[in-house]
Amino acid sequence: MKKTAVVAALMACAASAPLAAKEGMFTPGQLPEIAEDLRKTGLEVSPEALSDLTGFPMGAIVQLQGCSGSFVSDEGLVVTNHHCARGSVQFNSTAENNYLENGFLAETKGEELPAAPGSRVYVTTEISDVTARVRDGIDAMSPTERYDTVDQRVKDITAECEQAAGFRCLVASFYGGKEYTLIKRLEVKDVRLVYAPADAVGKYGGDIDNWMWPRHTGDFAFYRAYVAPDGSSAEYSEDNVPYAPEHHLKVSAAGLDDGDFVMAAGYPGSTNRYTRLGEVKNTFEWSYPTFVTLLNDWIDTIEAAAPEGSDARVKYESRLAGLNNFEKNLRGQIDGARRVGLVDRRRAREDALNAWIAADASRQPYAAAIASLDALSEESATAARTNFWYNNATRPQLLGAAQRLYRLAKEKEKPNAQRESGYQDRDMAFFRQGLQALDRRYDASVDKAEWLLFLNGYLAQPEAERVAAFDQALGLTGVDDAKQIDAIVDGYYTGTSLDESDTRLALMDATAAELEASDDPFMKLAIALYTYERKLEDESEERSGRALALRPAYMDAITQWQREQGLATYPDANSTLRVTYGTVLGGSPKDGMAYLPFTTLEGILAKDTGVDPFNAPETQLKEIREKDYGGYALDSIGSVPVNFLSDLDSTGGNSGSATLNGRAELVGLLFDGTFESVNSDWDFDPRTTRTIHVDTRYMLWVMDKVDGAHNLIEEMDVVR
Amino acid sequence: MKKTAVVAALMACAASAPLAAKEGMFTPGQLPEIAEDLRKTGLEVSPEALSDLTGFPMGAIVQLQGCSGSFVSDEGLVVTNHHCARGSVQFNSTAENNYLENGFLAETKGEELPAAPGSRVYVTTEISDVTARVRDGIDAMSPTERYDTVDQRVKDITAECEQAAGFRCLVASFYGGKEYTLIKRLEVKDVRLVYAPADAVGKYGGDIDNWMWPRHTGDFAFYRAYVAPDGSSAEYSEDNVPYAPEHHLKVSAAGLDDGDFVMAAGYPGSTNRYTRLGEVKNTFEWSYPTFVTLLNDWIDTIEAAAPEGSDARVKYESRLAGLNNFEKNLRGQIDGARRVGLVDRRRAREDALNAWIAADASRQPYAAAIASLDALSEESATAARTNFWYNNATRPQLLGAAQRLYRLAKEKEKPNAQRESGYQDRDMAFFRQGLQALDRRYDASVDKAEWLLFLNGYLAQPEAERVAAFDQALGLTGVDDAKQIDAIVDGYYTGTSLDESDTRLALMDATAAELEASDDPFMKLAIALYTYERKLEDESEERSGRALALRPAYMDAITQWQREQGLATYPDANSTLRVTYGTVLGGSPKDGMAYLPFTTLEGILAKDTGVDPFNAPETQLKEIREKDYGGYALDSIGSVPVNFLSDLDSTGGNSGSATLNGRAELVGLLFDGTFESVNSDWDFDPRTTRTIHVDTRYMLWVMDKVDGAHNLIEEMDVVR
Repeated sequence: MKKTAVVAALMACAASAPLAAKEGMFTPGQLPEIAEDLRKTGLEVSPEALSDLTGFPMGAIVQLQGCSGSFVSDEGLVVTNHHCARGSVQFNSTAENNYLENGFLAETKGEELPAAPGSRVYVTTEISDVTARVRDGIDAMSPTERYDTVDQRVKDITAECEQAAGFRCLVASFYGGKEYTLIKRLEVKDVRLVYAPADAVGKYGGDIDNWMWPRHTGDFAFYRAYVAPDGSSAEYSEDNVPYAPEHHLKVSAAGLDDGDFVMAAGYPGSTNRYTRLGEVKNTFEWSYPTFVTLLNDWIDTIEAAAPEGSDARVKYESRLAGLNNFEKNLRGQIDGARRVGLVDRRRAREDALNAWIAADASRQPYAAAIASLDALSEESATAARTNFWYNNATRPQLLGAAQRLYRLAKEKEKPNAQRESGYQDRDMAFFRQGLQALDRRYDASVDKAEWLLFLNGYLAQPEAERVAAFDQALGLTGVDDAKQIDAIVDGYYTGTSLDESDTRLALMDATAAELEASDDPFMKLAIALYTYERKLEDESEERSGRALALRPAYMDAITQWQREQGLATYPDANSTLRVTYGTVLGGSPKDGMAYLPFTTLEGILAKDTGVDPFNAPETQLKEIREKDYGGYALDSIGSVPVNFLSDLDSTGGNSGSATLNGRAELVGLLFDGTFESVNSDWDFDPRTTRTIHVDTRYMLWVMDKVDGAHNLIEEMDVVR
Repeated sequence: MKKTAVVAALMACAASAPLAAKEGMFTPGQLPEIAEDLRKTGLEVSPEALSDLTGFPMGAIVQLQGCSGSFVSDEGLVVTNHHCARGSVQFNSTAENNYLENGFLAETKGEELPAAPGSRVYVTTEISDVTARVRDGIDAMSPTERYDTVDQRVKDITAECEQAAGFRCLVASFYGGKEYTLIKRLEVKDVRLVYAPADAVGKYGGDIDNWMWPRHTGDFAFYRAYVAPDGSSAEYSEDNVPYAPEHHLKVSAAGLDDGDFVMAAGYPGSTNRYTRLGEVKNTFEWSYPTFVTLLNDWIDTIEAAAPEGSDARVKYESRLAGLNNFEKNLRGQIDGARRVGLVDRRRAREDALNAWIAADASRQPYAAAIASLDALSEESATAARTNFWYNNATRPQLLGAAQRLYRLAKEKEKPNAQRESGYQDRDMAFFRQGLQALDRRYDASVDKAEWLLFLNGYLAQPEAERVAAFDQALGLTGVDDAKQIDAIVDGYYTGTSLDESDTRLALMDATAAELEASDDPFMKLAIALYTYERKLEDESEERSGRALALRPAYMDAITQWQREQGLATYPDANSTLRVTYGTVLGGSPKDGMAYLPFTTLEGILAKDTGVDPFNAPETQLKEIREKDYGGYALDSIGSVPVNFLSDLDSTGGNSGSATLNGRAELVGLLFDGTFESVNSDWDFDPRTTRTIHVDTRYMLWVMDKVDGAHNLIEEMDVVR
C-alpha cells in the first residue's frame, strides 16, 4: 500500500473535521462562565471584557432591522452585509444612476445618501435585569391574568425607558419567560449609505449560491450613523453630524488561517433548541411538509398570474424570491432533520432528561411541569392545524390592512399605555409605513389568484375546520361553494377602495363606528371576523400564560442537568446580542466530500459565466487574472481568501455580525450558513453546521483594487 | 496562527491533488514503451505481459455491446456493470417476477436466464496489423477512390476473417487511418444472466446521481458465456456448456487504499483529443449550444405529447431519459470547456506544434498537410451547419425505416461483398432486430409532434439551407408553408402502414422496383430523398478520403513532437482494448471543495430517503446500521468502501471495465466519470478529470450480506 501525503491529507478531512464544532449562542453575560474554554479555543482578550455590553468590543456592535453591524471608525462608520443595506442601494437607484448595477461609493461625507426610509442603527446604552418586576406574583395568577400582567408590565417598563427622547427600548424574555432584560438603545434615525459594491460583487452567486458552499460573495457594505450636533437622535438633517461611538473595531488585514479562533457578535433572531418532541414532530412531520406543498402551489399561482415581463411581476419579484427562499429553506430543514435524525435525537435527549429527573425525588416538580408543557404543546399544535387553512384564507393584503385599521380604531378607545403592542403611539410610524408600502407589492389580479388558491384549500377541509363567521361573511353555505367562489371573490376586488394608499392612510384616524359604517367589502369582512380573531388571540394568550409558568421550570431542569454534565445552557435566540465562538473549519457535509475552509479569488474566475449572478465586474476579473493580490493574500492558499467557513452557531438576524479574531479585531462578516445547517435552529449538529463569512482581506482587496474606496480604508484602523 | 493537523490536511487537498493525474488510453501494445512510468506508479506485473492481448490478464478482458467486462471464473462467469446488463434483467422481468425491483440470482447454472436478444460476449483470439494491405497505393488515388478502396479492403479483410464460423471480426483504424488492426473475436451468442442486484442497489442514485460524486451505486452484475460442447460459438441451446476462458481475473477482497496504483482495461468508444481548433470551436461555440436548445424543445415536445401516465410515455421513457442525459452531458461539456479554457488550450497546443514544425525545414510537409486538414475541418463544419435542420427534419422513425429498407433493396442489387457496411449479409440479424424494436418505442402522435418541431425549425432557416428534393416531396412551396405543415404531416401518419412490424419485416425482401411502386407516404419520401442523401454521402466520403491522406501526417507530427518531449502519443479511442493507469485519488472539482476518494456504507444511510432512486433495500440498511462489515472494511475509512475515484482516463464504452491493482487482481469496475470530466473526450484536464469505480469490497459485501450470492463468491478466486 502506497500512500502520498496528499491523499492522506484528503482522507483526514472527512474523518476529523466535525469533532471541534461548538454549539452555543451565549449572552455576553455568560462568557465569564465559559472563560476557560474560550481561552483554550484561542480568545486573547479577557472573557470578562466581552461581557460588558457598553465596553470594548461589545460597545462597537450595533443592531439594524433584522441584521447586525459594527462600528469601524470613530466617525460612526458601520459595516454590515450588502444584503442588509441593499434596500438602501435600491432606494437611491435610478435608471441613470443604477447603484445596484454599478455599486455606490461616497468619496466624501457630503456624497453620502440617505438610507431607505425606516432604516435604523440601534446602539445599546444600558442593560438591566427586570425579571423581578415582570414576574412578581404571577405564579399565583390564572393563565390569562398572568399573560396580561406580564404583557402590561413589559409595556410599562418599555414606556418608562422611552421617556428619554431618542431611545428605543426593549424588554427581552429569556428561557421562555424565566428572565427578562431591559435593553435601552439609542435609535439612530439618520442613517446614510456610504459604500456598497455592485450587485455583481455584493450579491455574487445570487439565489443560486444562497446557502451554498463554495461561495464567493462580497456581502459587505457601509453605512454611517448621524445624530444631532448635541449627540442626540434626530431625523435626517443637513445639520446632523456623524455619531461618535465610544468604541469601534480595528480591521485586520492579516486575517485568519485555517483552525484559528474566531467569534461573532450579533443579534440572532430566534431558535427552537429546547422545543419539546411533540412540537418537533408536528413541525417536521406536518407543518413543514404541508407548507412546502402549499408554497409550491403558491409560487406557481403567482407566476401564472404575474407572467414574466409584466408590471405585476415587478411588484411580486420580492415576494416570489422570498417564497422560493422559504421553500428551499424548508426543504433543507426537512432533509437535514431526516439526515441527522432530529426526531430520534430529541427523543433521546428527553429520555435522558426524564431519567435524570426520575433519579431524584426532589426533581419531581420538573416532571409535572414538563408533562403539562407537553400537553400544552399538543394543544398548540392542534390549534395550528385546525386554523391552518383559515389563516391562509385570510391572507389577502387588503383584508390584512382592513383588519389592522379596525384593530387600531378599537385599540385607540383605550389609553395608549394599555393598547396592544403594535398599536401604541410608538408604533405609528412603522404602522403608517406598512400601509404605504402595500402599493409597491400589491396587484389586484395576483392577490385574487392567491386568495382563490387559499380559499379552495379552505373549502376542501372537513366541516370542523371551517369557521362559521368566515363562511357567513363570505356567503359560503356548504353547497356548491367551489362553483360560486370566483364570483364572490370578484366582488371584493371591484368593490374595494382600500387599494388606494390615501384611503388607507386616512382611515388611520377613523373611529370604530365610522369603519363599521363602511361599505368596503374587505372592511366589512375584517369587522365580521373581529370577534372570532379576538377569540383565537385570547386562546393563544391563555396558552402563553400557562407556558409562562411551565417553560421556566423546564429550562431550570435543563440548566441544572446540563450543568452537572459541565455544559453551559444558553437561552434560545431572541434578537438580543449573542456571542458564538469556535474555529475556522471546513467540513464534510456528505460522505465522500469535503468543504475546504477558504475560497479564493481564482474561484471567481472559474465560476464566472458573464451571466448574472456570475458576472463579476471586468476590472475585478482582470485584477484576478493578473494576480494583483495587493498584500491581502493568505500564504497557505496562495491567494486572497474570499469567503471562509467556521463552526460558529448562528441564525437569521446574525447577518452582518462582526466576525472577530482572538484580539477582537474584525476579520470578516458573518452572512450565511451552509445548506446542511438550515435546520440548526432546531438542533445544532456539529458534524454539518457551518457558518459562512466574507473575509476582511477580500473586503479590503475589493475596496483597494476594484472600487478604489481608499477614503474608507484610510478612515478605518486597518491592522496587520 | 494556530493550525491543527486536520486543517492542514484539508488545505492540502485543494492545492496538491491534481498534480498526479495521468492522461492516456494506451493500446496494450504501447505499454512496454511506458514501462518505467507504469512500474514507478505501482504496476507489479510486467508491462510486457500486459501487451499480450490473449495472455494474462488481457485475455480475461471481454467486450459487450457498448460495454466492457471480464472473466472472473474458469466457467465463463463475466462481471460487468449493472447498467450494461440491465436490459437483460428487464427482458426477463414480469409483473410476478420483477427482477428489476427485486434483483435476480441464479443459485445454480440451471436457474440462469437467457440475456436480452442480441446480447453478445466478444473474446479476442487474434490480432494482426493490416495497415500495409489497407493503405497500399492509396496516396496516389483521388479522395473518393481512396475512400472506396480503403472501405472495400476493410470489408474484404473482415469477410476473409469471418470465414471462420462463430467469429466476428473488426478492422480498427488508429491515428485517423494511419494504422489498421484486424481483431478476430469469438462471438459468444449464448449469454445468460447469472446475478444482478436490485435496481435499488445497482442503480442507486439513478439519474440524479448520474455523473455525480459522492456516489453510492452498486453498478455490477454477472453474465455467463455459453458455447457449444465443442467450444464453438452457438445460439442458445440447452446443450451448450459454460465457456472455459484461457484466463480469468482473481477478485481482491483486500482492495485498495488511497493513493494506490490502479489501472483499467476496457473498450472506450471514441474521443476527440486531436481534433483541430476549428472543429473544437465549431463544436463548443455552435453545435453543442444549438443542440442543447433543440434538446430542451425536443424534451418539452415529447413530455407534452406523451403526458405522464400515458401509454405513449411508457414507450418514450427511454428516449426521454436518453435526451435528458445527453442534454446534461452537453451542458456539462460546455461548462467544462469554459472552465478549463478548452479553446485557448487547444490554440496554445497548435501554436506550439506549429512553432516546432517551423523550427526545422524537414518538417514543412507537416505544415502543408495541417493547413489542408484545417480547410477540410472548416468544410465539414460548414456542411454540418448547412444540413443541421434538414437532418433533424428527416428524423421521423418510419421515414428512417423506409430509408433503410429502400437502401437495402438498392444494395442487394450488388454482390454481398460490395454492399455498404450495415447492408451485408452479416448485418441482417441486427437489421431485422432494429426494425422489430421500433414498435416498442414508437407512438404516432408523439412522432408527429417531434416531426412538427423539427419541420418548423427547418422552415425557419434561410433559403440556402432548404433542400429542394425535400421541399418538393413534402409539397413545400415557400409560401405559407408553416400554415400548411400540420395538414401535410397528418397525411403521412394516416397513410402509412410502416407502423406495423410485419409490414416492415416483409419489405426486407422487396426489390427497389417494388418499393418504388409503393403508395406509402414515408416510402415515397424516402425514395424522393435517395439521390440527395447519396450526394451527401458521396461528399462526406470524398472528405473522408482527403482526411485519410492528411490526418496520418498530422498524427505523425504530433507523435514526433511529443516523443521529443518524452511523451507517448496514444490513439483516440475507437472501441478497441485500451489500458489506462494512475492512482486512487480524490480531487478538488471546485474552489473551496474537495472530493474524498472513497464513499462508505454509512453514506447510503445518510442519502437514503426511502424514495426511488434513494431507496436501498431494508435488509441492506439494517446491515449497515448494525455495522456488519463482514471483513470487507477499509481501515483508513472505518467502513466498507462503496465507490472510489481515480485519475484514470476513460470514456463511454469503458463501462464495466475491469479495474485492476498492481498485481492485475480485480479491485473494482469502472462505471462513470464525474460531471467535471464530461468534456475530457476533447481535452483531458488533470485537475478535474476523475473516473468513478464500484469497489470489489462493496460488491462482495452485497453478495455476501444482502443477496446471499455465496455460490458466486465460492466460484470466483477471491484473494486478500
